[in-house]
Amino acid sequence: MEPLRIDVETWCNAPADFQLSSLRGRVVVLHTFQLLCPGCVMNAIPQVARIEEAFAGAELAVVGLHTVFEHHDAMHAGVLRAFLHEYRIHHPIGIDRTVPGQPVPSTMARLGLRGTPSLLLLDRAGVERFRHFGGVDDLQLGAAIGKLLASPVKQGAGPESI
Amino acid sequence: MEPLRIDVETWCNAPADFQLSSLRGRVVVLHTFQLLCPGCVMNAIPQVARIEEAFAGAELAVVGLHTVFEHHDAMHAGVLRAFLHEYRIHHPIGIDRTVPGQPVPSTMARLGLRGTPSLLLLDRAGVERFRHFGGVDDLQLGAAIGKLLASPVKQGAGPESI
Amino acid sequence: MEPLRIDVETWCNAPADFQLSSLRGRVVVLHTFQLLCPGCVMNAIPQVARIEEAFAGAELAVVGLHTVFEHHDAMHAGVLRAFLHEYRIHHPIGIDRTVPGQPVPSTMARLGLRGTPSLLLLDRAGVERFRHFGGVDDLQLGAAIGKLLASPVKQGAGPESI
Amino acid sequence: MEPLRIDVETWCNAPADFQLSSLRGRVVVLHTFQLLCPGCVMNAIPQVARIEEAFAGAELAVVGLHTVFEHHDAMHAGVLRAFLHEYRIHHPIGIDRTVPGQPVPSTMARLGLRGTPSLLLLDRAGVERFRHFGGVDDLQLGAAIGKLLASPVKQGAGPESI
Repeated sequence: MEPLRIDVETWCNAPADFQLSSLRGRVVVLHTFQLLCPGCVMNAIPQVARIEEAFAGAELAVVGLHTVFEHHDAMHAGVLRAFLHEYRIHHPIGIDRTVPGQPVPSTMARLGLRGTPSLLLLDRAGVERFRHFGGVDDLQLGAAIGKLLASPVKQGAGPESI
Repeated sequence: MEPLRIDVETWCNAPADFQLSSLRGRVVVLHTFQLLCPGCVMNAIPQVARIEEAFAGAELAVVGLHTVFEHHDAMHAGVLRAFLHEYRIHHPIGIDRTVPGQPVPSTMARLGLRGTPSLLLLDRAGVERFRHFGGVDDLQLGAAIGKLLASPVKQGAGPESI
Repeated sequence: MEPLRIDVETWCNAPADFQLSSLRGRVVVLHTFQLLCPGCVMNAIPQVARIEEAFAGAELAVVGLHTVFEHHDAMHAGVLRAFLHEYRIHHPIGIDRTVPGQPVPSTMARLGLRGTPSLLLLDRAGVERFRHFGGVDDLQLGAAIGKLLASPVKQGAGPESI
Repeated sequence: MEPLRIDVETWCNAPADFQLSSLRGRVVVLHTFQLLCPGCVMNAIPQVARIEEAFAGAELAVVGLHTVFEHHDAMHAGVLRAFLHEYRIHHPIGIDRTVPGQPVPSTMARLGLRGTPSLLLLDRAGVERFRHFGGVDDLQLGAAIGKLLASPVKQGAGPESI
C-alpha cells in the first residue's frame, strides 16, 4: 500500500517545505478540522491535545490539516494563525489547497473525507490504517494507536517493504 | 442603582435599534466573549446554551456581547456571523464599539471587565447584580439566577423605583 | 402547609434525638439514597457534596435519608456507617424506619417517594417546595435552591405563618 | 516469565473452579476493587465497563478481584453479590482469600498491590504486562490494551514460549 499524501498550500508551525515523509518511522496522527467547526473545537482538538500530551515524541507525531469547505472568507490563513495561537497548537498544520470553483479543497476531495473533524492514523511507513469522521472515544482511539505503536521499526523499511 | 448600559456598533440576531431596556421585567444573562477565546468557546458558551435551554422565556433573556481586545483583524463582524451560524447562537449579540487607538472596546472599558469570558446578571430592572470573570460552576450560577427570578415583577416598576 | 416530617430509626452523624425542626430558618436539602444504588453513588451523592461545598452554612443545611427498599441484608446500619466513612459524608443521615412485612420503609412510603435517588428542598419553615426523582442538572437545582435562599427569614416565623 | 496467579476463596459470576488459565490466548483485564471504595465505584468500575463494551470477546476478557483490606464486616460475600447485581457486573469476580490475622488478603499481599483500584493487563500467555494503582486515563489504558491485542496468537503457544 502507498503512503498517504496530502496537498497543502502552506504550513503553519513548520517550514514551508515540510513533508509528511519526514515522519517515516513514527506513527502519525493526522487530524483534519475547520476553525469554526464546533465538533472540532470542543471535542476533536482537545482529544488531539491529550494524544499529543500522552504519546508525542520519537514514536508518534501529530499533524493537522485545515480543510475549509464552508465560510471560506471567515477561515483564511490569518484567522487560522490567530486560532492556533489562542489554542496553543504547536504541531504542524497544513492548509489544504483550494481548488478554484470547488468548495471542497484538494486533499479532502482526493481522500474522500466526509467532513470535519476527521482523524486518520498512519503507520510507521506512512500508510493510512485508521480513519474516523466525527467523535471517537478515547479507549478505542487509544487502542488503535497502541496497535500501531506495537509494530516494530524495521531496518531500512520503506513503504513498499511493509 | 442605575440599569447597566452597553455601547455597541451593531447587533447580530436582533434589529439594529435593539436596546437592553426592551428586556425590563425579565432577568438578563449578559455574556461577553471573543470567538477565538478557548475558555469562551469550550466552557462559557456551552454553559450559556444550557441556561438558555433551561430558563429563557418570559422570565429570562440571554444577550451576548462580542468584546474583541486582541486579534482584531481575525475577529471582525464577518467572522463573527459565521461563528454564530456554526454554533447555532440565535440570541442577540452586540458587537462592542471599537475605540480608535485603544485595543479594549468601549463597553468593556467602561464596565471595567477583566477579560473574556465574563458573565453578568441583570435584575428585572436592568441593574447588574452578579458578575464573574472566567469559569463559574452551574450550581452557583443557577442559584444566582434563581435568586433574581424569585424577585417579583412590580406593577409599574422602572429602574428608578428599585 | 405543614412542615415535612420524617420517621427514622436512628441517626448517623447526629445526636439520637436530632430533629429536622432544629433547622427551621435554613433551607434544607433532603436527599434520599441507598448505598448500593448506582445512580445515588455516582451522581446524586457527588452532586449533594457540591451543594454542601457551595451553600452549606447558616442559610442552608444538608440532610440525608437512607431509604432501603431492596437488599435489606446488605444495607444495614453497619454497612452504612462504613459507607459514610469512606465517602466522607459528615452531614446527618437518618435511617428510614423499617416497617415489618413491607419492603418500603416508613418515610418513603408516607411521602410517596418513587425510589432512589430522590432530592427534596424544604423552605425555611420546613415545608417541601421541590422534589425530584433521579438525576437533575446543576443549573436547575441551583436555581431552585437560589429561589428558596432568596426568601426572607421572618421575625418569629413558624411553619404556620408561611 | 510466569503467568500471573491469583488465590480466591470463591467466584461470583463464574463456576467455583474457574481458572485464569482458561483465558489463555486472550488479553485479560484484571481489576481489583472494594465495593465501598469511592475511586473504584465512581471511576475504575465505569472505566472497566467501557473496556468491556469496547473490547470484550474472543480477543479480550475482563476479570475482577475483590480485595478487601478494611471494613471487612461490611464487605462480605453477601454484600458483594448485591453490589454486583445492582451495578450489573456480569464478568467473573473472585473474592481474594482472607489470611487469618492479616488485614490484607492473600493475592493482594503476594502481588504487592498498593490498594484499590488497581488494574493489571495480562498478555495472551497470562503474563502481567501493565499495572496501575489509582486512576489512569482512557487514552493511555487504550494504548496499553491495543499493544497487547496487536501481539499474535501463536500456534501452540504456552506461557513458556513467549
